[in-house]
Amino acid sequence: MLAKNVDVNAHGHLTFGGMDTVELAKEYGTPLYLIDGNGIEARAKEYMTAVEEYLGKGSHPCFAGKALCYTDLYRTLEKMGMWIDVVSPGEFYTAKNAGFDLSRAMFHGNNKTDEDIKMALELGVGRFVCDSDDEIEALHTIACEMGKKPKVLLRLTPGIDPHTHKAINTGTIDSKFGVPIETGDAERLVKKVLEKESIVLMGFHCHVGSQIFECEPFFEAAEKMLTFMADMKAKFGYEAPEINLGGGMAVPYLESDEKISYTENIKAIGERIDALLEKLSLSRPVFYLEPGRSMVADNGMTLYSVGTVKCIEGYKNYVSVDGGMADNPRYALYEAPYTLINASHADKDADFVATVGGRCCESGDLIQENVRLFRPVRNDIIAVLTTGAYNFSMSSHYNRLPRPALVTLYNGESRISVKRETLEDLIKSDL
Amino acid sequence: MLAKNVDVNAHGHLTFGGMDTVELAKEYGTPLYLIDGNGIEARAKEYMTAVEEYLGKGSHPCFAGKALCYTDLYRTLEKMGMWIDVVSPGEFYTAKNAGFDLSRAMFHGNNKTDEDIKMALELGVGRFVCDSDDEIEALHTIACEMGKKPKVLLRLTPGIDPHTHKAINTGTIDSKFGVPIETGDAERLVKKVLEKESIVLMGFHCHVGSQIFECEPFFEAAEKMLTFMADMKAKFGYEAPEINLGGGMAVPYLESDEKISYTENIKAIGERIDALLEKLSLSRPVFYLEPGRSMVADNGMTLYSVGTVKCIEGYKNYVSVDGGMADNPRYALYEAPYTLINASHADKDADFVATVGGRCCESGDLIQENVRLFRPVRNDIIAVLTTGAYNFSMSSHYNRLPRPALVTLYNGESRISVKRETLEDLIKSDL
Repeated sequence: MLAKNVDVNAHGHLTFGGMDTVELAKEYGTPLYLIDGNGIEARAKEYMTAVEEYLGKGSHPCFAGKALCYTDLYRTLEKMGMWIDVVSPGEFYTAKNAGFDLSRAMFHGNNKTDEDIKMALELGVGRFVCDSDDEIEALHTIACEMGKKPKVLLRLTPGIDPHTHKAINTGTIDSKFGVPIETGDAERLVKKVLEKESIVLMGFHCHVGSQIFECEPFFEAAEKMLTFMADMKAKFGYEAPEINLGGGMAVPYLESDEKISYTENIKAIGERIDALLEKLSLSRPVFYLEPGRSMVADNGMTLYSVGTVKCIEGYKNYVSVDGGMADNPRYALYEAPYTLINASHADKDADFVATVGGRCCESGDLIQENVRLFRPVRNDIIAVLTTGAYNFSMSSHYNRLPRPALVTLYNGESRISVKRETLEDLIKSDL
Repeated sequence: MLAKNVDVNAHGHLTFGGMDTVELAKEYGTPLYLIDGNGIEARAKEYMTAVEEYLGKGSHPCFAGKALCYTDLYRTLEKMGMWIDVVSPGEFYTAKNAGFDLSRAMFHGNNKTDEDIKMALELGVGRFVCDSDDEIEALHTIACEMGKKPKVLLRLTPGIDPHTHKAINTGTIDSKFGVPIETGDAERLVKKVLEKESIVLMGFHCHVGSQIFECEPFFEAAEKMLTFMADMKAKFGYEAPEINLGGGMAVPYLESDEKISYTENIKAIGERIDALLEKLSLSRPVFYLEPGRSMVADNGMTLYSVGTVKCIEGYKNYVSVDGGMADNPRYALYEAPYTLINASHADKDADFVATVGGRCCESGDLIQENVRLFRPVRNDIIAVLTTGAYNFSMSSHYNRLPRPALVTLYNGESRISVKRETLEDLIKSDL
């Protein structure tokens, strides 16, 4: 199986986190998001342990909530003492709702409004990650008015191409994110921020991209960032206390994908950092990583019910399910690969090739094209694996579809973490 | 200007439906969806008049709600006596909430669940548009249980390629929608439905695609459908009383796009139909068209506030606004073209070339690349034109962003039709 939390039981049903998915579909209805709560705790612990051990005491992984965000998840992260990366008032409001201590939050985004900044300052959000003159000026003005001294990381564009999909490739210079080192803009902004008494410059941030299986892009990022740190020390006598290397570690979506060990990769990055710090004669800063997808993707699964099976002779077989691009737009957006299983007959040979489509009135509403699965009939349960990241968080009401429930599996029990929306919910804002 | 409801006033501000967009942004906040209510009424009237005049008495356009769906809009359509095309319980629940008479609704979709079918039968939805054996069997079973006799149109795939974007090209044979004529499946399904006493076969439906400027694909569709109708008459003595030619008429998004007259196009289609009916010796059926985009796109506009302007020397200028792919995912999905204007300075030369990005933490969150607009500063209002279709309806909470308000402009006054979501709304389903 693709992940160790996925298996088949004696009934031939697919299990997730040790629980029968067909039974879960019956109990909670479909479409249904499942989250393996034990899996998320284990992954969080793995990240926290490896980051502290290999990147230095006081270093932290920050979970990137844009991958998955709801109150119950933040309760878990608060309990574990994990840091988070937030990108909007909606995210830090959700964290606050969970009792999360926002001093452990990094506030990201290329466009924070004045209102966002005020709210973040009021709530005591730990770090502002800033990347433009306009933002620094706005933060400075508002901080002065409120008598606050926000801690800031400057987001830099290191100019590294991690060879991934264009839409998620953020480390190159031509990006809406970051301030380029190469053009001199980064240095100019450091000077400006150091002159502002209202702002405490804590260091630098970068993010090289997503779905990166290798260590090399992180080695390059660490080298660029520490070299820039040394440069700023030489030029301004400023030795950054913190460096944030962003997220981007990959997740296997298909059996044919490479495997990845986050601990091994962090260890390798740590060794490279040790050598760089020595070579550049720098004091060890605190390091942050920002795992999003790699914290949650394989700890999520989506269940659908089959509606129709249509065989167009000489062309293709279509299986239609009761969800689709409204709950998972990633195929429509990126042709993202997924592994599908007929959960009702997970012990049988996957001998039927079909394109699995959603229920939206849109041709592009596909879950996956030409996958192999045991031939389903109406009301069979189809499981889509590895949907923990960027599914629930990207879900829409397209075709006026209510958002599915999200159920957490923990120690062999299940609980609703996010209720299924009702038809009444869909019109709640209509006047 | 691109559309006749867009202009510039004496303050140099962009106007929409005769109203000052900068003032509207101040009153209602940004991001903000605007809908020109008078424009929608005028377009609905144009469609209703042309369809009745050129396609025959009793023929109707059905507004495709997947393009735009909220209670207030359906109130307008009910008042006008228009038909609608619905794709989910959420859509017909919304129409019902508006007091809409659902006997004027066509229920579409490649995957109706048993629950959907029951609800549609209970509410008296006018037509079921069906396209698979599984669906017909489910409808038959449930209709028998409930003692109902649903009226059905069979959706056929005529095998026409309208040369448009793959994701919205639904008339070819390899599609999750429809039953192909070419393979004999359509004829087989007609025979099956005619034998089911629980189902009243009303005729046939097709949809050739989207953003079609020419009449030719509709001519071809009419010919295929009427030829099939004649064929079924010859084979089974069944002369279909209704033919639905679907939607797909185009909307200009850029000044450089072709212009289009819906009345002229419907007139031309009507003439072709007249000739075909005569040639094939068929009684005139009732015709339906299903305009979605062409009813609402140019009757919508989105307003954003500028947050940051970043010039990366030698690369690109980036303007970031306070919305993006969460309220308009169409650039991320299809690289859809849009016209942008600095609404605060609409009288000034558009002399600045920039990529306008949204506020989401995702590189692909762009509104448009390399557009010309007057150079904005923080808090200027940017208008994106022609956003009435597939913006509000496709909006998500990605990055945990609340959905913008939707304001209707009517006879020089404005009213909130859909309230802006609050942070509290975002956590309402969280347990």
